[in-house]
Amino acid sequence: MTDAREHLLDWLRDAHAMEQQAEQMLKAQAARIEHYPELKARIEQHIEETLGQQALLEGCITRLGSSPSRLKDTMGKVAAMGQAIGGMVASDEIVKGSMAGYVFEHMEIASYRTLIAAAEALGDQETRAACERILVEEEAMARWLQDHLPDVTRQFLERADTPGATAKK
Amino acid sequence: MTDAREHLLDWLRDAHAMEQQAEQMLKAQAARIEHYPELKARIEQHIEETLGQQALLEGCITRLGSSPSRLKDTMGKVAAMGQAIGGMVASDEIVKGSMAGYVFEHMEIASYRTLIAAAEALGDQETRAACERILVEEEAMARWLQDHLPDVTRQFLERADTPGATAKK
Repeated sequence: MTDAREHLLDWLRDAHAMEQQAEQMLKAQAARIEHYPELKARIEQHIEETLGQQALLEGCITRLGSSPSRLKDTMGKVAAMGQAIGGMVASDEIVKGSMAGYVFEHMEIASYRTLIAAAEALGDQETRAACERILVEEEAMARWLQDHLPDVTRQFLERADTPGATAKK
Repeated sequence: MTDAREHLLDWLRDAHAMEQQAEQMLKAQAARIEHYPELKARIEQHIEETLGQQALLEGCITRLGSSPSRLKDTMGKVAAMGQAIGGMVASDEIVKGSMAGYVFEHMEIASYRTLIAAAEALGDQETRAACERILVEEEAMARWLQDHLPDVTRQFLERADTPGATAKK
């Protein structure tokens, strides 16, 4: 296996670890949200998508003769920040959580754009197709979060200034 | 000051700390890059933009009667991941660094979109205008990194498979 092919495989395993982390983060977020039902519903939809993405990545990794690793160092550390924010208990948790979700989506988008370029360069059409399919879902989730971030912010600030209302989650 | 106004001020101070972190990360990246001159030049341009953004944010924070804080907890931790990656010494440093830069830009984009919605909700037109101006620069940098990520990936993989060539930075 060439160095380039080893990088492709490494990045696929990074992506798989990232999606495991995504699953944990999204589940933690969805379980805590109380007052923002639209956001909760969209996160629950994305949990289902994430499970499908894990399976697609496992297929690519197995086909290349390897197996998914446990959380890898580099991306695992990056991913851990997402989870840390997902579960945090700040007074503006819902806003920071939405921001963290948006940032995490863009980590995923960067990963799949890299994987698509690498698979294309190395002539691996199946990996390319799998990553292009996943990228569509990640970009849709990122767009949804971007479009709804102003609403979440406004709702949060209104609730923050309403006596007796809980704003944070 | 209402709770909502306190959140706006908190987020402005978070953004200022984030831009300090951005400055450190970008400087560390630019100093290490050897074989990817176009990327290095764009990062150097963005360092100048980042300094201007810090000044704009300081203006908003001072006008609201506060002063920029040292690195704050929440965003500081998130920002630290960017720096950790920026300075890391992985065999695919240039690719991971580009991805990290792209992710960091989107953390900034999420922050300014939140700030714009908050400033608008609270009638603070000056903060809104400052953040809209910064957002334009962040989105341009994010777009540039997204557009160039496939090229960086391809160049990296070619160099990785070229005997005697250094690929990683």
